[in-house]
Amino acid sequence: MTSIEELLDRYTAAVRAKDAGALASLYADDVVVFDMWGVPAFRGLAAWRPTVEEWFSSLGDESVGVTFRDVEARGPLAHMLVRYAGLSPDGEELRAMTNRMTWVVEDGKVVHEHSSAPADLKTGRVILSGE
Amino acid sequence: MTSIEELLDRYTAAVRAKDAGALASLYADDVVVFDMWGVPAFRGLAAWRPTVEEWFSSLGDESVGVTFRDVEARGPLAHMLVRYAGLSPDGEELRAMTNRMTWVVEDGKVVHEHSSAPADLKTGRVILSGE
Repeated sequence: MTSIEELLDRYTAAVRAKDAGALASLYADDVVVFDMWGVPAFRGLAAWRPTVEEWFSSLGDESVGVTFRDVEARGPLAHMLVRYAGLSPDGEELRAMTNRMTWVVEDGKVVHEHSSAPADLKTGRVILSGE
Repeated sequence: MTSIEELLDRYTAAVRAKDAGALASLYADDVVVFDMWGVPAFRGLAAWRPTVEEWFSSLGDESVGVTFRDVEARGPLAHMLVRYAGLSPDGEELRAMTNRMTWVVEDGKVVHEHSSAPADLKTGRVILSGE
C-alpha cells in the first residue's frame, strides 16, 4: 500500500524535477481535480496533465521547492498546507505561496485533488500567504 | 448509513432555514474545514460554527437557495458544484455564485469540507460564476 508520505515525497520530487510524467503517475486515470487556478474542474488525467505541463514549461530556468505542513491523514483522505517556493537556478528563494490541498487516495493513486487559497471577502482576491 | 443525497438535502434545508444548529449537525466534532473565505483552515466544529452563524446573521431578510450539480460520490468522498442564490424575502433571485465543494464523510458526518472557487491567474481574483 502506498502511504501518504510516499505520495507527498513523490509529489515534491516530481515538481522539483519538473517531471510531468512522474507527477502524472500520482493520479488515477479518472481523477477529478479542483485546481486553484482558471477553471472549476479537470475531469480525468488526460484533461489535467496539460495544465501540469504548462506549469512546468512556464517556469523557464526557475524551479519550485515544495514543503508540506499540517498534514493530516485519515483513511483515504489527506489534507495539508502546501508551500510552493519559486527558486532561482542557484537555489535562491524568489517568492512563495501557501495553498490548502485535499487528496483522496484509492489503490495508491490520487482520485481527487482540491487545491485553493482562501479569498478576502471584501476584495475577492485570493490570499497568497508565503508563510 | 447516511447517504450523500441525504446530507446534501439536509445542507440545502439548513441553509434555506438559516438554521446553524441543523447545519452544524452535518459535521463531525473534529471536522477540518478549508472554507472559501478568510482563513486557511477551521479545525474542529467549535472553530467552524461561529462562521456559519455569522453567515446566516449577515443575510438580514434575505435567504440562500442552494442547488448542487455534478455530484460525484465515491466511497467516503463526494465532490460537486454548489450554486448559492441570494433570495429576496419574496423569493426573487438577487445574485448567485457557484463554488466547488469536496466532502469526506465518516459515520454519517462530514469530517472534511473544502470549498473554493478557481482564481484568475492574472488578477488573483476568484471567479464567481453564477452559472
